[in-house]
Amino acid sequence: MSTQKLPQGVLPDTISLVFGHPDATTLPVDELRVATETVLGSPQACTALQYGSVQGSPALIDYVVDKLNREESLGLTQDNLLIVAGSTHALDMIARQHARCGGTVLVEAPTYHDALRVFRDHDADLHPMAIDENGIIVDELGVQLAALVHEGKSPRLLYTIPTFQNPSGVTITQSRREKIIELSREYGFVIVEDDVYRDLAFEGDVPPSFYGLTGGDTVLRIGSFSKIVAPGLRLGWLIAAPEQIKQYLECGTIQMGGGANPFVAHIMAEYCRSGNLESHVTRLRQVYCSRCNVMLAALERHMPRGVTWTRPRGGFFVWLTLPIGLHVRSLGEASRSQGVHFAPGTGFFAGSGGERNLRLAFSFVPSNEIDRGVRILAQIIREMMPQTD
Amino acid sequence: MSTQKLPQGVLPDTISLVFGHPDATTLPVDELRVATETVLGSPQACTALQYGSVQGSPALIDYVVDKLNREESLGLTQDNLLIVAGSTHALDMIARQHARCGGTVLVEAPTYHDALRVFRDHDADLHPMAIDENGIIVDELGVQLAALVHEGKSPRLLYTIPTFQNPSGVTITQSRREKIIELSREYGFVIVEDDVYRDLAFEGDVPPSFYGLTGGDTVLRIGSFSKIVAPGLRLGWLIAAPEQIKQYLECGTIQMGGGANPFVAHIMAEYCRSGNLESHVTRLRQVYCSRCNVMLAALERHMPRGVTWTRPRGGFFVWLTLPIGLHVRSLGEASRSQGVHFAPGTGFFAGSGGERNLRLAFSFVPSNEIDRGVRILAQIIREMMPQTD
Repeated sequence: MSTQKLPQGVLPDTISLVFGHPDATTLPVDELRVATETVLGSPQACTALQYGSVQGSPALIDYVVDKLNREESLGLTQDNLLIVAGSTHALDMIARQHARCGGTVLVEAPTYHDALRVFRDHDADLHPMAIDENGIIVDELGVQLAALVHEGKSPRLLYTIPTFQNPSGVTITQSRREKIIELSREYGFVIVEDDVYRDLAFEGDVPPSFYGLTGGDTVLRIGSFSKIVAPGLRLGWLIAAPEQIKQYLECGTIQMGGGANPFVAHIMAEYCRSGNLESHVTRLRQVYCSRCNVMLAALERHMPRGVTWTRPRGGFFVWLTLPIGLHVRSLGEASRSQGVHFAPGTGFFAGSGGERNLRLAFSFVPSNEIDRGVRILAQIIREMMPQTD
Repeated sequence: MSTQKLPQGVLPDTISLVFGHPDATTLPVDELRVATETVLGSPQACTALQYGSVQGSPALIDYVVDKLNREESLGLTQDNLLIVAGSTHALDMIARQHARCGGTVLVEAPTYHDALRVFRDHDADLHPMAIDENGIIVDELGVQLAALVHEGKSPRLLYTIPTFQNPSGVTITQSRREKIIELSREYGFVIVEDDVYRDLAFEGDVPPSFYGLTGGDTVLRIGSFSKIVAPGLRLGWLIAAPEQIKQYLECGTIQMGGGANPFVAHIMAEYCRSGNLESHVTRLRQVYCSRCNVMLAALERHMPRGVTWTRPRGGFFVWLTLPIGLHVRSLGEASRSQGVHFAPGTGFFAGSGGERNLRLAFSFVPSNEIDRGVRILAQIIREMMPQTD
């Protein structure tokens, strides 16, 4: 396990709880080899290597539509789906179309740091909305919406990662989702549902998606193969109402590029068509559930009283809160010197916040290192805490 | 030749002079199979399938830097280059960074239609600059710049395809390039040099690039593997001053995606490292030179007097001008009914223009069909022309 390739910049003798990457040992190299050989060894090679349909590889569209209809009874047609070059591509198109040049966007606090960058690149006006262990706090959202409207602002988007959120690991409950939908109708904003961790549930049911609850009305839902197959392929999808999909098809980037990554889209279609994805996702759920249990047990075992953390039921991340008086910056300096890396909470807020928070990723690091990393962090935190007796 | 796969929407019994696609029979399927097998059959598979370095695959950066230094003595280092997901990706980043929300951008008239879309998606304020058979007309550019400044506008970018331009096929002469650089220094705008056809010269020397003439000062140069290997791989590069490259590395899209298409970048690096690219480009030059000659000979043979066209020395396109009094719309309607398709000139202008122009792509259609297509077009034009005696 410890021989897995490390991302650039990771020293081999460190424990990196930073990266929200899939475990390298799970990457389905052999199945992708077979799929690639099938594509390049058949007449479809020339289609795969040429400019493609702007909506994306038809075979891959068919597969994803069938998968979502089978699993969630969404009643999608091919017209509801656009293949994108990873969730990044979808989010960038959405930010450009709905929020560029000062559009008001509501984001969770905390939220995914690189999504904040994408919105900032388009000069969106970002407003953080508090979350707790059940996701966005609906009453506070209502108060903030009223205040924004009072200021003359008209919120266009709410960007949410509703299921096994990055960075907090929390999931918005169904009743809160329903209330958020009511607010979206009242205030006329679009819900951008970044649901890339949805397939990685450890057990039990996942609440219906915003898309499912609304029937697709004013929801843009992003999915991705990055967490469930391989990020390096850069493939995902966007589902939306057909008239919305049509607007995205007119974007310069997607027209000029000839659709999202035609070559890898053909490979992915072949990989999925051969029935690989379902068994792979089943395996991933077991791997990440086990890793998460190791992390939660290590936290329970090692952390001093006063430290709290979320208990995710899927995904890649645990969100930890330090006792009052401690700052994540000091912890980061001390832990780096002992070879343990994590993502400080401060990067995940559109405004201030996160000074007492850490995102700990359990997806990328072998179980034995998780325990050791948490033990070292706990020891440092204990030393930073004021002596009570 | 006639069995090559057609892009979506092309009927098999039509002659499509529309598509600026590489000839499907030239796509290096076997060499890419070998390169892919090397990547997926080695330990680098896990790196290729994971999130990558934001600047792009180091092996591919090294290859492109060496190629450009070898061929053009540019003196580039790795810090001058960013791997991008095709020229689209580079142009979108440039438009967002320099021209979003109303930034003034100068474009050639005509210019690449999908580049216009990219700029429009960012609300850039586009101003067309006339070209002739030697590229941008420098005196007119100077007059227009003075007028823009007089209006209080501050041009930020000049977007040019200086070599074997899409759609016109023309190349800006070296002396004009030098004068444009003087104007860029005088008025403080950045030259965006989209040089994706540069490698496809039929014979003789190509003028030095804007990047080469300035030493990289205030020039952003875009290159791509789409025309010289395969568009479906979605890979290209951006070269610029290191401080400019650093700014692009901070973009949300490139951070969030983990660099441009890591998997295919590894494959491309392997393909190039094995020495495939040089011989492939040599072959492409012969193929497209021969196609272009067929088209020029067919135009000479069939077109009535009063019709004129450009004589490209590389690339994919010939630009045709109808006699005064004829409109490309009427020609398009008549030719479609006879199965011949082309791109009408009107799509290639930021303002008005192109009503008497056609872009004819010779890259994608077999030689025998080129002659037949041109013959049919000529016949229709002849019938549309007023009888002179």
